Formats: sequence, C-alpha cells, structure tokens
Amino acid sequence: MPIWQELSWPRIKECAEKGCVVIVPVGVIEQHGHHLPLDTDAFISQEIARAAARRDTEILVGPTVPFGFTPSNKNFSGSISLTAGTWMALIREIVRSVHRHGFTRIALLNGHGGQVALSRSTVAALQDEEGIRVVVLNWFGLVDKDMGRLFPDEKMPGARVGHAGAVETSMNLHLREELCAQGSLVTHLGPQAPPFVSKVGGYVQTPREDLSPSGVMGDPTLASKEKGGELFELAVERLCAFAREYRETE
Amino acid sequence: MPIWQELSWPRIKECAEKGCVVIVPVGVIEQHGHHLPLDTDAFISQEIARAAARRDTEILVGPTVPFGFTPSNKNFSGSISLTAGTWMALIREIVRSVHRHGFTRIALLNGHGGQVALSRSTVAALQDEEGIRVVVLNWFGLVDKDMGRLFPDEKMPGARVGHAGAVETSMNLHLREELCAQGSLVTHLGPQAPPFVSKVGGYVQTPREDLSPSGVMGDPTLASKEKGGELFELAVERLCAFAREYRETE
Amino acid sequence: MPIWQELSWPRIKECAEKGCVVIVPVGVIEQHGHHLPLDTDAFISQEIARAAARRDTEILVGPTVPFGFTPSNKNFSGSISLTAGTWMALIREIVRSVHRHGFTRIALLNGHGGQVALSRSTVAALQDEEGIRVVVLNWFGLVDKDMGRLFPDEKMPGARVGHAGAVETSMNLHLREELCAQGSLVTHLGPQAPPFVSKVGGYVQTPREDLSPSGVMGDPTLASKEKGGELFELAVERLCAFAREYRETE
Amino acid sequence: MPIWQELSWPRIKECAEKGCVVIVPVGVIEQHGHHLPLDTDAFISQEIARAAARRDTEILVGPTVPFGFTPSNKNFSGSISLTAGTWMALIREIVRSVHRHGFTRIALLNGHGGQVALSRSTVAALQDEEGIRVVVLNWFGLVDKDMGRLFPDEKMPGARVGHAGAVETSMNLHLREELCAQGSLVTHLGPQAPPFVSKVGGYVQTPREDLSPSGVMGDPTLASKEKGGELFELAVERLCAFAREYRETE
Amino acid sequence: MPIWQELSWPRIKECAEKGCVVIVPVGVIEQHGHHLPLDTDAFISQEIARAAARRDTEILVGPTVPFGFTPSNKNFSGSISLTAGTWMALIREIVRSVHRHGFTRIALLNGHGGQVALSRSTVAALQDEEGIRVVVLNWFGLVDKDMGRLFPDEKMPGARVGHAGAVETSMNLHLREELCAQGSLVTHLGPQAPPFVSKVGGYVQTPREDLSPSGVMGDPTLASKEKGGELFELAVERLCAFAREYRETE
Amino acid sequence: MPIWQELSWPRIKECAEKGCVVIVPVGVIEQHGHHLPLDTDAFISQEIARAAARRDTEILVGPTVPFGFTPSNKNFSGSISLTAGTWMALIREIVRSVHRHGFTRIALLNGHGGQVALSRSTVAALQDEEGIRVVVLNWFGLVDKDMGRLFPDEKMPGARVGHAGAVETSMNLHLREELCAQGSLVTHLGPQAPPFVSKVGGYVQTPREDLSPSGVMGDPTLASKEKGGELFELAVERLCAFAREYRETE
Repeated sequence: MPIWQELSWPRIKECAEKGCVVIVPVGVIEQHGHHLPLDTDAFISQEIARAAARRDTEILVGPTVPFGFTPSNKNFSGSISLTAGTWMALIREIVRSVHRHGFTRIALLNGHGGQVALSRSTVAALQDEEGIRVVVLNWFGLVDKDMGRLFPDEKMPGARVGHAGAVETSMNLHLREELCAQGSLVTHLGPQAPPFVSKVGGYVQTPREDLSPSGVMGDPTLASKEKGGELFELAVERLCAFAREYRETE
Repeated sequence: MPIWQELSWPRIKECAEKGCVVIVPVGVIEQHGHHLPLDTDAFISQEIARAAARRDTEILVGPTVPFGFTPSNKNFSGSISLTAGTWMALIREIVRSVHRHGFTRIALLNGHGGQVALSRSTVAALQDEEGIRVVVLNWFGLVDKDMGRLFPDEKMPGARVGHAGAVETSMNLHLREELCAQGSLVTHLGPQAPPFVSKVGGYVQTPREDLSPSGVMGDPTLASKEKGGELFELAVERLCAFAREYRETE
Repeated sequence: MPIWQELSWPRIKECAEKGCVVIVPVGVIEQHGHHLPLDTDAFISQEIARAAARRDTEILVGPTVPFGFTPSNKNFSGSISLTAGTWMALIREIVRSVHRHGFTRIALLNGHGGQVALSRSTVAALQDEEGIRVVVLNWFGLVDKDMGRLFPDEKMPGARVGHAGAVETSMNLHLREELCAQGSLVTHLGPQAPPFVSKVGGYVQTPREDLSPSGVMGDPTLASKEKGGELFELAVERLCAFAREYRETE
Repeated sequence: MPIWQELSWPRIKECAEKGCVVIVPVGVIEQHGHHLPLDTDAFISQEIARAAARRDTEILVGPTVPFGFTPSNKNFSGSISLTAGTWMALIREIVRSVHRHGFTRIALLNGHGGQVALSRSTVAALQDEEGIRVVVLNWFGLVDKDMGRLFPDEKMPGARVGHAGAVETSMNLHLREELCAQGSLVTHLGPQAPPFVSKVGGYVQTPREDLSPSGVMGDPTLASKEKGGELFELAVERLCAFAREYRETE
Repeated sequence: MPIWQELSWPRIKECAEKGCVVIVPVGVIEQHGHHLPLDTDAFISQEIARAAARRDTEILVGPTVPFGFTPSNKNFSGSISLTAGTWMALIREIVRSVHRHGFTRIALLNGHGGQVALSRSTVAALQDEEGIRVVVLNWFGLVDKDMGRLFPDEKMPGARVGHAGAVETSMNLHLREELCAQGSLVTHLGPQAPPFVSKVGGYVQTPREDLSPSGVMGDPTLASKEKGGELFELAVERLCAFAREYRETE
Repeated sequence: MPIWQELSWPRIKECAEKGCVVIVPVGVIEQHGHHLPLDTDAFISQEIARAAARRDTEILVGPTVPFGFTPSNKNFSGSISLTAGTWMALIREIVRSVHRHGFTRIALLNGHGGQVALSRSTVAALQDEEGIRVVVLNWFGLVDKDMGRLFPDEKMPGARVGHAGAVETSMNLHLREELCAQGSLVTHLGPQAPPFVSKVGGYVQTPREDLSPSGVMGDPTLASKEKGGELFELAVERLCAFAREYRETE
C-alpha cells in the first residue's frame, strides 16, 4: 500500500513510471458533534484510499489534506477553516507538484460536503490556468444510494450524508471505535433545514450553531459499526473500479 | 418593471426601503453553436428576471453580469472567459454594493452550467468573509423536470440543459427569434460525454472543441418556439414564487 | 451592426479575419441625479459605438462593461463600485479574450470621468505584462470643444462634461427620453469644486454627497434633446474617423 | 529643512503636532538618454521639495520614492520598472505609515510623466479603501506654461516636458551639472509621436526604443543651466504656495 | 495525549479553557535520500510534540502541517513544494482559527531547515497584520549542541542537522525503523557546500540535485537507533520545559 | 564609484558587459532613538557599498531601498513599515529589472535586523519562481565578531548589533556626525529582552515601545566615532573581498 509521504523519492519515481493513479484524500478539520473526532472527513477519505491501495498496487495514496473550508462551522471550537482563496491555492500547488513528477491521472477524494463546489471550482481553475486535469470524487458520492438503503429511518435534513449522523458515526465506529465518544451522542433533527430553503431551489447558508447546538445534523443513535463496515467496503470497491477505468483512459 | 441600471438613485432607495428582492442575472459570453448568440446564458436569465419583475413589483432586477467563467469553451471565437479568481471578486464586489444600499434579500439567477459550482463557492466565500448572504438560483434548475418532459427525444450528453441544444434554442426562439440563425443548426450528439466519465462518478473536463466541432451539445433541431415559451413561463412563475417565499423570511 | 454578444461564434471569427476594430464600451453604474438612469456612462458609450458600427461594417462593438470604479459616488443608492484592483483585472481579462480570438485593434470607449486615469493605468499594465496594446478613448474626449460651444451658459465645476448636467442630460434625452425623469431636475452649481483644489494644480477628492445632495454637478435645466443629438452625431463621426485611422496602422 | 528620513522620531512627532504638510517626492529609475542620470525624475522632485522646505518650515519632505512604473522604457539598460500592482501597493503603504503618525495633509510630488495616471489611480484607491486623502502633484504641472515659454524652439513630440530633452536637461544642469554627460547629447525629434496617435484622441503606447534609439524625446541641445534655474525657482515658489493653501484647509 | 484533530469539539473547548499551549508540528514533504520517508521533517516534529503531550496534559498537539516550501528539492520525485506566498497564507489561517477558539499560547514546531526564515517571516506578518503572537521553534534547535556531540564524525556541509544524514536517519530509526530502507544508504559528503558560499557570509542557493544525486547531505551510515532515541528524548524534555515557561507568561 | 541611479543607461550597459557585481543596499525607515536619523539602516548599508565601489571598479552600487518591514517599531513616529507581502514584491521586482539588464551577480546588503529572515525568504521565493539567484548579506554580519570586541562593555539585549546602541551610533558618528543629536542619548538596557524568550529557544515578538520608551536597545553612550570608523573600514574590506570571490564563481 504505497502512501506518498511514507515512501522515499526513488519509490515515487517508480510509481510515476508505472502510471499509478494518485488519489489525494481531502477533508477538513471541523466539529463533528460531541462524539466524533474533528478530522472525520479527512480520515474517512484517507482510509478508503488506503484500503483501495492495499488491493490495487497501481493506486498511490497522495498526502492527506486535512485543511479545508468550513465557514458555517467555524464558530465551533476546534474547527479550522481556510479562506476559499487560500484553499484553492493549496490544492492547486499540491497537485502541481504531483503532476510535475510525471503523474497524469490524479483524483481528489473529498470527504467534506461543504467542499464539493469549491473542489470543482478549484480543479476547473487549475485546468484553465495550468492545463492540469484532475478528477474530483467525494467518498459519499461513491455510495450515494447505499446510504439511504442502510439508514432508512434517519430523517435527514438536506444532504443524505448528514453531519456526524448515522453515516459518519458508523464509518468512525468501523474505523476507529476508540475515538468515538459514544456516551455523548446527541441527535439533532429539529431544525431540519436552514431557515430559508426555497421550494423551487436555492437556499441561504446558516451558521451551524443556529441549526444545531451540538453541531450534529442527523441521528447518530442509528449508527452501526457493521453498517459502517459495509459502506466502507462498497466505497473501497468503487474507488478500485474508478482507478481501473481511469488507468484505461489514454 | 424596475431594472437597476435604468433607475435613478432615488428610485433604488425606494426599492430598498420597501424590501425588494434583488435578482442579479448572471451568465457568460461563450459560443452557442453556429446558430445562437454568444450571450444566451446571460440573456435568458435576464429575461426571466425581467418578466418576473413585470408581475411582481417587489422584485428589482439587478444589473446583468454577462462576464463569466468558461475555460472549456475559450478556444471558440467570441468566448470571453475570466479567471475564476477575478470572477469571484467581480460577483463579490457587485453584491457588496447592492448590500451596502440596504438590500438584504439578494439572489443570483445564473444561466451558465459551467458556473454553478463557482457561484456557490463565491457566495460561500462572501458570507464567510463579509457576512453577506446570497441565494444562488440557476434558471434551468427552476424547470429541471420540465426540460425532460418537453424534449423527451433529445439524447443529452451530460446535463439535461445541454449546450445550444433543444432547450436553449427554444428559449432563444421564444425570446429573440431574429437572432437565431436557424439555417445553421448543427446537431452534435456523437461524443455524448467527456472522454472520461467514471461509472462511479467523477470526470475529466474536456475542451469543448474536442467533443463537438460546432460547440453544440444536444439536438437543436428538436427546438420549438412554443416549447420555449412554455418553459420560459414556468421559469418566470417559479422565480416569482421564490421571491414571495424569500420576502417572507425574517 | 455587429454586436459581439449577439453574434454566433462563426460570425466573430469572420470579423477577426477581416480585421475589424473592436470598440469595447466601458462605463459605470452610479448615481446620475434624480433624473437620469444609473447606467448613463455605459449606455452613452455603447450607443455611440453601435451607431458607428451601423455606418462602418468593420467596427465590431465589444461587450459593454457597465461595472466600474466610482468611490466618490458610492454612498448614493444604486451606485456599484468595484475596487480598483478588481476593475483592472476585469478589463484585462476581457481584453485578453478579445485578443486571443485574433483581434489586434482594440479600443475602450469609456464614458466615466472617474475612470480615465484608471483606464490608462489598466492598459499600460496590460501592455507591460501581456504585450497586448489597447487604445483608450473617452466619448467626451471626442467632443471636448463642442460641449463648451453647445452649452456656453453652464457654469461647470471641474470638468466640462459635469455629472448629470446639461451634456449628459441632453444625450439621454436624445437616446432614451422615456427614462429621463424630467420633473425631478435639480441643479447643483453651488459648491462648484471640491473643498480643496489648489491654484497650482492638485486637489482632494471629496465624496459627492458633500458637494451636491442630488449628486448633480452642473445644470441639467440647460439640456436640450436637439443638442444631445448634435453632440451624439459628432461623437459617432469621430469614432468612425478613429476606426478608419486605426485600421490603416500596420 | 526637515527631511523625513534624516530626522529622529521625536522630531517627526513635532512635525505632526504642528500640522506640517508632507511632500513625498516620487519618481522612477529609467533611461534618460546618453547624458542624464537614471534617477532624473525622482531627483528633480526631491530637490524642488527640499528647496521648498528650506523656505517653509512647515513643509516636511517625505522619503523619496525612486522606484516607479516605466514599461515603455524597460528595455533600456538601467531602467527599473515595478508592476503597476506593486507600485500601487508601495505608495499606499508608505502613505499609510505617514498618515498613521498623525499627518493629514499629504501630497505626492511626482516627476515621471508615465506615472501621472497611475498616481491618480493609486490615491483614488487609497481613499476608497482606507479613507486617506492624498493630493497628486507633478512638478512639470507646476510650471506647465513656463516650459513652452522658455523653450519655444523645441519641437516636442507629445507632452511638453519631453524626455531627457531641453527641460529635464536644463534642470539637471542647474542641480547637478557634474552628472550630465554633455558630450553625449543626442537629439531625437524624428519619430515625433508614437506610431498611432489618432487625430480624435487615443494612442497606442510604443516601446521607447522603437521611437528613439537614444531614448531621448526632445532636443537637449537647447538646454540651458540658467533656464533650468528659472524653471526650478518657479516650481519651488508654486510648491510653497500649494503648501500654504493646503494648510489653510480644515 | 490530546491531538487536536482526534478530539471532539467540546474537548477542544476544555483545552482552551484550561490554557493549554498549542504546539503545531510543521514540516514538508521532500526527498530524504534513498532511505528515508518523504515526510521526515513533519513526522519528527509531530512525534516530539506528541511525546511531550503525553507527559504534560496541558500541551495540545495542533494539526500537523506536512505541506511546506522546498524549492531546492523540488526536482526530486515526491517533493511537494508550495509557493512562499501560499505557505504563509496557509500557516496564518490555521493559526487564526486556533487563536479564534481562545488559545493564546501557540507555537510552531518546525522540522524543515529550509523553512526557518520563512516561518519567522510568517509569524512576523501575522503579528503585524492580525495581532496574533506565535513562537517559532525548530526541533533541531532544541538539541543544537547535542547533534554535534552525538555525531562527531559526521563532516557536515552547512547546517549541523544535514539532510537525511546521521541525525535524521537516527531519528527515523528510533521512531519508525520499518520505513527506513537501510540497504539503500548513500553518503554524500562530496560537494560539501553550495557552489558559492562566501568566506564573509552569504551564499547562493543551489538545486540539491547539483550537490548530491541522492539528495543526502551528510553521512547516514553513522546513524544509530540508540542515538536517535537519546536525541528524541532530549528534544521532548526541552519542549516540555518550553511549554512550562510559556504557560507562566502572563 | 558607479552608483546605479546616477549613471546614464549606456554606462549601466558597460557595467553589465564587464560583469560587475551589483550590491543593492537595503534598509528601513524606522525609529533609532532620540539621537539617530530614521534611515540609519539603509544609510549605513549604502555607505559601505559606496566605499567598496570606490575601491573596486567592478562593484556597481544598486539603488538603495530605504523602505522596509518593521512592525515592532511601527508605533514610533516616523517609522514606515510595508507589509511583508509588498516588501517581498518590491525587492523581487527591483532584482528582476537588474537581472533583465544582464547582471548575474547580485547581492542585497541589508542593514535591518528585522529583515534578515524576510530577505532570505524573498530571495528563496525569487529563485523558486523566477530562477534568479541573489545573495543576502547583512552589513553587521560582515563584522559580527568585531562588534563584541569593540564594545565589550555594552550589555546587549538580544542581537549584538542592538538598536541605536553603541554600534549604530558609532557608525553614524563616523559617517554623518552632523545628524546625530548627541545631547539626546538615552540608554535602554532595562528590559533587556522581550517578555518571553524561552531558555530552549523561541520568543514572542514584542512591540518595541513596551521594551524601551526611547526605542533604543543598547548603550549609545559607549559609542565612539573612531570605533565607528574602524568598524566601517572592516565592513568595506570584507564587502570587497566578497565581491572578488563572487566574480570568480562561474
């Protein structure tokens, strides 16, 4: 399982020569309720990428980027939020270095819902200004339908994946149960949506603390270590499938 | 029908005092095949907003922003593409001025598919750094399901709305038939997708000219002035509904 | 009369091939007294350019840039003022796209007095950093002497063209009388100059509201639709002359 | 004669307390023909300011800014040209520091023709974004009519002051004859204008070396040490007059 | 041992309330010869900080910043080098978030020699522009004299710590022997200095590949796991001492 | 003694052709106690460079950069402090122009302790992004050991050179006694260090006014014109030695 930062430089050179796909895990450090670690988004992405790399030796896991953009959570202790401009520059320059060493198949594996649009904007700007092409994946996008199937009873505000709800809690239980403070599970389904979400589309972003004092959006009491494992397995499989497809492109 | 730039300053003051919703039409100047004008995205947004303002006197149509971000079309003659950073600054500063004059209900009505993510990123940064809240709407989002219903035979690559296909051609026929060069309709459905679109999600952005020599993505021969009118009417109604909802928020 | 944004891309290509001069109308959205529309500066420039293009088929009217830099008017409702840096970037990138499509004779036709210096600075930077050459014209510069001749009784503070005074009001009456609120003409000749204008040159810029509560600098009651027409005609003729000269350069 | 950088900090404090006008000499380092020193523009401004300060103890000469913006001369050995953006930032931050120490009457005394527009743009941006007001003076603006009177036979291309012609050479002879290489006077009046200067206004900036191999624009053989002294004296007097006027403003 | 990103937000809040010192490990991903992992600099800093936090519960280990500035190593496969400007912004914004949550005793623990000056510049700018005070420590600075004592036979070019030489190799052996490819040790002591280092001070930075094909500067064959442990222990002790001192400041 | 800005452009061309070393004096305008001029750092550097150039005709003294970065002194009247970003840009662009004219041996001779790290960061970024190599020298680095030898009784807080203490006062006495207000010597040795300087390294930067009301760090009463001359002579000699060495590199 090659992990970029743990290799020596001649090993990276070999990876480039054999045409490895580089998967760069991308997340954020932000509140995940009373019970989950702050780096949940980055960690899940990283572990999916590493598991995929254990199965497919032509996947190289790029350096995890734990720093992200989370203005709506920035008032919760521990959240670290870059400005949009700095985040875009950070991702661009990391990718620029990866590309410089001969890798042409590069993907971000993002784990933070609040970064989906910004990730796309970033790679569009990168391609526009530097001609480097990058695919954006979101791990929850890999298992989009499975989340609803596995947690049918979670009444989710907004996005399926919620925030520190059943899905993310299950994933953490599967991956690092010891860091989950299960005694402090708090469910916040009340204000199930931001104050203004139009019926015809469009919404106003609301500081998370106005929606949920705990920061949770969803129902972590429905979480299950086994379902976390099932979801993880599906995500890993699909990431492997992605890597195979990607390598087959010219 | 109040249009920002055609009013005198005391009229804008009155609009602010009565709590008007400001709808800022946002588009781009980019190729739209052999048959449609370059400013199609900006113009459709603008006309929908103006029609809504004719029905609802508490909608104020902001100044149209015809300049946008379209790196994948930039090699076609006539396309004008700003860098992502400059576009973000432009939108932020326009909105900052609007907000400064006392408007608190502001929405962008975007007409360019390639700007959806960047619009979201921009308003997220604006709220993060300046505390100004803006809703992003896309006119094609207002009629998402209707496009498929009205043009069932168009085999669309990627997004429903296509590019210079049946939908945009119909809208232009409805709004300004005289600018549509109907003799030069060219259909491009061949390379129905970018060279690499993964089955599990994720894709590589491709310069448009590599996908379609004419720039068209879709089938403009299926266009109909009447269907354009129907779609336009639906979009206007829904924008009016949005404005009512928005004004009711605190 | 080719107008950039209303053409299809193959038409722009033809214009480039025949060596058209591109005139980009540039203005600002800012208060113009109680009686004139906010986009007066952009609109007059645009209409002069369009009229010239109706007479000379080798003039291509570029996309109008209504967004400008007007810090001294920014406190009046409706004024939209970009920062100097963003405005410079906006103009540079629009011109960069125009130049990319093969046009080598490009001019800005500016209509905003407060943007004369910044326009020159912008094109100087553009030429310095990207090697693209652009001419800056101001429509009031085309008729510099005629303004004094036509309105001898207007005691103008500062520049001949004033602000929402006889000249601009006459032009609007000629071009779009229906948008001029003639009942609300207010003359402000009182504080005919900024608080500090040295006899030897040099001045301190003053917020407009401190000089004129209505925003007007000049005497719009002297305006005349006919004189507006005469001035407009002269400006159009001279812009045509400019385009002929410009095309003759190597 | 207080010169900012030669004082100790308590002396600057006294100057602020008595309401001194701060004159910041601004120039550029650029070619001035075969016979004049590169810092001519900065030096003349500085010497005028210093002479004024010798006569008026309430003038404080700010630190000379020799670095400027001169893209059209940048190919001549010795020219040092900043980008427009960096120059604007440099001036803004120097002025910000001056203002921070309690000075409210600040003027730039510019000596470089190619910086007139950029100086205005810079102080406009400074006032817009930081609320600091600065007057822009150009030393040649102080003696605008006198230059023509003193050198009637110099057929000047473009601006009266020329470049390394009679005016600047005379000033240097008056101020520092020892640095003028009078044996190497070269007159360049040939291509008296940039390749494209429209009759109705507007021009294309041309690299200086394409207009004048020596870099001179004008006729330095008409220079005279005495006329230099006369011009200098007039400029000093007018700068003193300016400072008196300025101090009288509230 | 509290590690920022592994905590939940209420735990971070507690840490702020009890006045914890935050130590942010800072490194770079760059070549470290044929035998050491790319993230050596970040990892050693991180492990020293974590060990200190195990002994002193009022140390909170901030999120490790593995991305750094290493232009001289950027041509070696695997090196990831940000521009100086982006790195400064990244560090500033991370620290800004940490400070926002109530921490006033913040230190960077840097592990990259090529980042010592830039770290100081960054915190100076941060204090200047945002008023946030940060201490810069370098782990090799904590054990400056011990390195020479422990490895007297290593003839080091330039700095004591070398690059992938005896010190860093020993530290890696102590911390993660399994990632050290000991069979591929290469010593490069030949061009013991950059091509130009003046006797009176001052030098020209040279791309590392011109000095050492392996990237090593020093003699890793002198490394010893035991000495690595001794050095590590000293660094941890001194970091603990630092934290105690720092907490005692007002 | 060639001084860049006093030469004509053909003379600069000759200097480039004979391979001159360019020494750019760099300082700051900041408080230097009650007795020394604000530009002490820039002036000493400049005079050392000029004296060296008098002895070695292949040294060309670049234009002095008096503007610098001094946040900790910015509250003292007269200090002019750029932001770190603007300073870096200023230095980079000056050097870029110097390099453009054919000079490949360029050194900064810095005189400001608070700029040592930033100077290194700047030239590292310049080399990274533009491939231009520059040596950073500090004049006090040229005489590092001599300062202690000459002023054994000065108990210096922090760096040997102090601030407006014995060393800088002696240098000013040697170079321009007339600008030294010797009646106002104030010694500040009291708070001999910033409030927090850890025993193991690392410190918190403190606004100078909190350490020393006069701004002085050191004991100017120990200054001596003769010792100033001795120190100056040593610095000049070593700068000449440096230039010789530098010219010998390929």
